[in-house]
Amino acid sequence: MQPTRPTTRAPRVLARDLTAVRPGERATLAGWIHRRRVLASVTFLVLRDRSGLAQVVVKDRETVEQLAGLPEETVVEVTGSVSANESAPGGAELVEPVVTALTEPALAPPTELWRPTFGAGLPTHLDHAAVTLRHPRHRAAWQLASASMRGFRTALSTREFTEIATPKLVGTATESGANVFTVDYFGRTAYLAQSPQLYKQMLVGVFERVFEVGPVFRAEPHDTVRHLAQYTSLDAELGFIRDHRDVLAVLREAVAGMVEGIREHAPDAAALLGVELPQVPEEFPVIHFSDALAKVGADPDEPDLSPAHERALSEWAKAAYGSDFLAVEGYPMGKRPFYTHPQPGDERWSNSFDLLFRGLELTTGGQRLHRPSDYAAALERTGTDPSVLAGYLDAFAHGMPPHGGFAIGLERWVGRLTGAENIREVTLFPRDLHRLEP
Amino acid sequence: MQPTRPTTRAPRVLARDLTAVRPGERATLAGWIHRRRVLASVTFLVLRDRSGLAQVVVKDRETVEQLAGLPEETVVEVTGSVSANESAPGGAELVEPVVTALTEPALAPPTELWRPTFGAGLPTHLDHAAVTLRHPRHRAAWQLASASMRGFRTALSTREFTEIATPKLVGTATESGANVFTVDYFGRTAYLAQSPQLYKQMLVGVFERVFEVGPVFRAEPHDTVRHLAQYTSLDAELGFIRDHRDVLAVLREAVAGMVEGIREHAPDAAALLGVELPQVPEEFPVIHFSDALAKVGADPDEPDLSPAHERALSEWAKAAYGSDFLAVEGYPMGKRPFYTHPQPGDERWSNSFDLLFRGLELTTGGQRLHRPSDYAAALERTGTDPSVLAGYLDAFAHGMPPHGGFAIGLERWVGRLTGAENIREVTLFPRDLHRLEP
Repeated sequence: MQPTRPTTRAPRVLARDLTAVRPGERATLAGWIHRRRVLASVTFLVLRDRSGLAQVVVKDRETVEQLAGLPEETVVEVTGSVSANESAPGGAELVEPVVTALTEPALAPPTELWRPTFGAGLPTHLDHAAVTLRHPRHRAAWQLASASMRGFRTALSTREFTEIATPKLVGTATESGANVFTVDYFGRTAYLAQSPQLYKQMLVGVFERVFEVGPVFRAEPHDTVRHLAQYTSLDAELGFIRDHRDVLAVLREAVAGMVEGIREHAPDAAALLGVELPQVPEEFPVIHFSDALAKVGADPDEPDLSPAHERALSEWAKAAYGSDFLAVEGYPMGKRPFYTHPQPGDERWSNSFDLLFRGLELTTGGQRLHRPSDYAAALERTGTDPSVLAGYLDAFAHGMPPHGGFAIGLERWVGRLTGAENIREVTLFPRDLHRLEP
Repeated sequence: MQPTRPTTRAPRVLARDLTAVRPGERATLAGWIHRRRVLASVTFLVLRDRSGLAQVVVKDRETVEQLAGLPEETVVEVTGSVSANESAPGGAELVEPVVTALTEPALAPPTELWRPTFGAGLPTHLDHAAVTLRHPRHRAAWQLASASMRGFRTALSTREFTEIATPKLVGTATESGANVFTVDYFGRTAYLAQSPQLYKQMLVGVFERVFEVGPVFRAEPHDTVRHLAQYTSLDAELGFIRDHRDVLAVLREAVAGMVEGIREHAPDAAALLGVELPQVPEEFPVIHFSDALAKVGADPDEPDLSPAHERALSEWAKAAYGSDFLAVEGYPMGKRPFYTHPQPGDERWSNSFDLLFRGLELTTGGQRLHRPSDYAAALERTGTDPSVLAGYLDAFAHGMPPHGGFAIGLERWVGRLTGAENIREVTLFPRDLHRLEP
């Protein structure tokens, strides 16, 4: 009954490793036909695999004819002799190839994927993402995201943060109320979690330091270039802090880890996209919200910073500190959620911050309330029924340390690094008001 | 405007590091009052922090009285002199302490958390999870999960797998149809993804090798000890395989990575729970489904293995190979999803497998179809309208390599390691037919 396995072919060599094979030896590449260049006496076949591109030189008439029937994106295996050629990618190419198609001839993609610049608009890309994500520039953008997640986790794991996985289906939508998706949950109404906020706080009571990288959901009713209905949130929360400045210090380590992740695991992707990685200062420069308003010449009673203010403040931080990052602390309590810790001595302000990165808000974070009596007062002030938060308030009644945390939007981070005009450009399969496919 | 920060206290020392402080020096611990033992002439205060337990000896009458008002779970900071004591945890304790409460006196937990065995039933634990998860045995179970995720990612990242983040809101429920949650998506109906299956396949076309660790959703209408409405799926998919045996080889590396993750990052948790970590053999032993039926004396036309069969086969693998793992390959095509690759030469069977671990199915995986014509035939056979899968079928029309993958249920893995009778025991905040809180 044991089936026979397919015959073992020559072991596969990745495109980037072709130069490590001795010239004259046989090697097998496998990948997608990235491009065929048909000249009078020779056809160049450029093969793409996960490691990059490799050139195959086809002179034999039969193989040239075979290739005429194998359009770009067809998946093939190519066995041939390795030959040194300084003008080939990596300095080596394959000659006298035998080409075997591993699937049926591919349909032509909506735009030619071998062109250095993606030749179609965003709607075409999003409609055909399963194919157009293969374009090296789209691939590279996600490689920055993937390497950033890896760096984030490394930074926190090595600092004794425990990774958690929290419920995305929740019974109450109290955290912010608006913009929440409803789910039919066995005949009851459930909601999709807008953040792991309440759970990561409860779990500080268990593990002291926790992080989660996962999807969050916002029923964002506006069609903007910076909002998605689902995005990836890099969340952290830690106990036994003095105040939000201790949170900011950990945020600094997390961001430095993300930059280091890219430097270590996706340097080619960063180079291809021309990304200038930020220097992360030893400490983020900090300005108080009230000073920030004064600096941009805004009314001292403004409750928030406008996008123009954020850009101006970032420019100032760059000029004054040489920093791509600026933390604005002390946002007015009125604009912050109920669990926000006020600034000791002046309760108009909060112990919370936004981190601006190159003109855009990247992160919100801060110190949270931790005394049960403070929660009781905050819920009364905001008119929230404590019974809907019973499981959460349990944690505080039973002893919670001073704590705080932050959340970084992964797609927003990558969008800012690459200078994407629309966050959808750096998301694998974005979800928004209009888009639920593919 | 810059607020004054709280005075810096003596730097905090973790419980496990108390022995590293020279006896006679001052040190500050911070954590939860795990237990107070009041004797006639002395009160022992056992403090719990993320690193473990530390003992504080209180003789001073005023502090003894203060402690009488600080029940278990109250969060405190304790500064005192370090003293060597072989009978204290770690061999050192704190004497002549000054105790500062960091929050209000804690309410008594639903059961005493300092007792070595958790003293309440599962419903009490789940109702009060924010507090009862603090019990060292519950904490330890999740530490196994956390370390397993870390080991899984390390195993795959070092093998050039790219981490992905796929949509959890999808427009069609074609993958399995039943047991799917519906979401009100801006007035349309969306579904919660039951797995990242279709997306990870599409992304093999982009990155060749991908993995995702994330939530999946099953509207499981039965109340069983092994099903949850949300669980954490460890998913991988890779291209350029010969058949499902290449997938099984990667699964072996992933499982070995998870065991290594625990060994490296959660050895104390494993020891506390008495977990015997499995030896992962160089190759998982494999038996064909038809041979498996014969071995357990089942009817050769049985379409599936019963739980009793799975246990018997696991026992056989342990006896014959000394292995806690057994792969059963070749499951009948009729029981597998539409994208399953048949066994070459005998299409009654499939190139798919289940991995049994200590008597229970841990993983399902296998080779998938990759030719567009095979998909067209499979959809026609199963009566599926191809238009609802347009975005997915796009990938195959435009060239996909032979590929396959697998998914491991994190909670099931930890449940099997710890011998939990109910999977809810090893889930942070489980969701099921009846439970949406906390």
